Amino acid sequence: MTRKSPSRRGFLKGAAVGAVAASSLPAPAIAQGNVQWKMVTTWPKNFPGLGTGAQRIADRIDALTDGRLKVKLFAAGELVPAFEAFDAVRDGIAEMTHDAAYYWVAKHKSMPFFCTVPGGLTQQEHMGWIYHGGGQALWDELYAEFGLKAFLAGGTGVQMGGWFQKEINSLDDLQGLKMRIPGLGAEVINRLGGTAVNMPGGEIMPALQSGVIDATEWVGPWNDLAFGFYKIAKYYYGPGFHEPSSALEVMVSKDKFEELPSDLQAAVENACMAENGYMLSEFTAGNSAAQATLTGEHGVSIGSFPDDVVKAAYGAAVDVLHETADVDDLGKRIFDSWWKFRQEAIDRAPFAEQGYMNNRGLANA
Amino acid sequence: MTRKSPSRRGFLKGAAVGAVAASSLPAPAIAQGNVQWKMVTTWPKNFPGLGTGAQRIADRIDALTDGRLKVKLFAAGELVPAFEAFDAVRDGIAEMTHDAAYYWVAKHKSMPFFCTVPGGLTQQEHMGWIYHGGGQALWDELYAEFGLKAFLAGGTGVQMGGWFQKEINSLDDLQGLKMRIPGLGAEVINRLGGTAVNMPGGEIMPALQSGVIDATEWVGPWNDLAFGFYKIAKYYYGPGFHEPSSALEVMVSKDKFEELPSDLQAAVENACMAENGYMLSEFTAGNSAAQATLTGEHGVSIGSFPDDVVKAAYGAAVDVLHETADVDDLGKRIFDSWWKFRQEAIDRAPFAEQGYMNNRGLANA
Repeated sequence: MTRKSPSRRGFLKGAAVGAVAASSLPAPAIAQGNVQWKMVTTWPKNFPGLGTGAQRIADRIDALTDGRLKVKLFAAGELVPAFEAFDAVRDGIAEMTHDAAYYWVAKHKSMPFFCTVPGGLTQQEHMGWIYHGGGQALWDELYAEFGLKAFLAGGTGVQMGGWFQKEINSLDDLQGLKMRIPGLGAEVINRLGGTAVNMPGGEIMPALQSGVIDATEWVGPWNDLAFGFYKIAKYYYGPGFHEPSSALEVMVSKDKFEELPSDLQAAVENACMAENGYMLSEFTAGNSAAQATLTGEHGVSIGSFPDDVVKAAYGAAVDVLHETADVDDLGKRIFDSWWKFRQEAIDRAPFAEQGYMNNRGLANA
Repeated sequence: MTRKSPSRRGFLKGAAVGAVAASSLPAPAIAQGNVQWKMVTTWPKNFPGLGTGAQRIADRIDALTDGRLKVKLFAAGELVPAFEAFDAVRDGIAEMTHDAAYYWVAKHKSMPFFCTVPGGLTQQEHMGWIYHGGGQALWDELYAEFGLKAFLAGGTGVQMGGWFQKEINSLDDLQGLKMRIPGLGAEVINRLGGTAVNMPGGEIMPALQSGVIDATEWVGPWNDLAFGFYKIAKYYYGPGFHEPSSALEVMVSKDKFEELPSDLQAAVENACMAENGYMLSEFTAGNSAAQATLTGEHGVSIGSFPDDVVKAAYGAAVDVLHETADVDDLGKRIFDSWWKFRQEAIDRAPFAEQGYMNNRGLANA
């Protein structure tokens, strides 16, 4: 753990402004002047996309600052367990995290809006809300209550519906279905008559094989292929209704961030911002190639959920989301801002990416 | 114009590695050590999204390097005319540009693949091809022939079909239609029986009003609202088939870039990469809000092109794209890599963003 005295912090600021203050010190002292930060994450070590993306952010900060800000990454469990990352930054155990904000729903019911919610925004739309639609100011307000500040830092894009042991032909087939699905998606599945189960990744395969669960969602073809679900579940459905963006965040201690000289602050901000398009497109490319492998080499056929399931799922999702507005004033303002953005995005989509891809598919058929 | 002697370049490299070399120099000498670059662009001054995005890239580089690399931006015509930006960097008049690669189609017929082509990839998919699907290596190979290197640096997302003076109910309505549309989209319109016209932005309004042209494409609701097309054309169609991403580039002199110390190189790279998601989502948010204004306050109704027009347009587009593979070996390799990526992206889309937005729209209807 890097604990710095106030005077050391002052030195770092001065050094960055002109480099002149450091000039009379011998080389080892300059090396000591480098800032060392710890980044805890909620991902297994080197987990493709998420864990490797967190490492890229750390590497970018190093390259941008010529090593003046070094970020050491810790996989889930290496320094603190995954779900203690939020408190680890508050308690000063680490200076930053890379994670998904919906893990912190117990801290405030509106947290998932800053990551992904059922029936919500695509990644492209979500960036629009955060950067250009008032989202970041609300996010800052919420996190300031905890002494934290968050930056968008990558995401998965639309996730798949999941792997099922039996075909889903109508809403009836969800009755009594035991499905591994976390977060607000779990609430939706329960309202549709299923039973949502939460379990860590490592327990899913045996549970699916033994019949403890009938279905599971995970991420998308790229990660799902690596996991090997196709070996034990027959039906692959997509897209899911429950995680249309899964935007990730870098969360920093607000105080420690503000103590950085402005160029190191810029390095953190830009390293995160660069990851948005980079990671999203890595999932896009990886999922395309992996889907071709699943269908071409492993004989997987992919289905779309039937219309009655779609309508019921999105309907229940909208109910669940509206309820977050009742918690407190900030929750209401977050919901109202987000909801207006969502409605305009839905009106816009048929004349933008949605319409374009439909036309391209029609012509290609 | 900043011309630097080889020895000055050597000094800059040394200074960045340790800051120790600079330490014995008085402050004014350190200030002289700052690098000044010129960035020419193909955009009118402060043009929303494109011009302002180029300025953001310059500002980010300044912030990341604490002013050690300062980039001065020139709007189209301020230093060189828009379409001379490519040669301006080759000739050393400027060190970098912000532009759209399809402007340079006369240099090589495959240039548009690094920006946008009719029937091509969305921005999210395009980033996938460039960053994770082999695109950047082909781009580097093509630009190295000119002593240049390019980085993805923002984009518009799917553009609209355009403004028409009469309704488009079938392919027949395109016969003899005079439309302002540039690039490969122009070739498609001509093959469908229309007459493509190319003219700069400033001439479009009078041409549309006087009947010199019957239709024009521009960008999307955000820019089109500001232009005022709704005042003189009755029918707004979207999305277009011709510019599904319009990815933009920062192009640098390869030699000058390689002479930069590694942290300044990282600043250029990350400032560009950060702009990808930032600009795309700015267009996404801006277009949503502007569409609501156009339909809600100005009574504009937006139509979708009929199926026969869609099929014919994408069909002609695919023909035009295939022809680029005949130019030379590199052109063939660019096309083959891109085409494989496109086919997998089309297969993937119904189970990803395309399918998700269709489901969300179905449930919202």
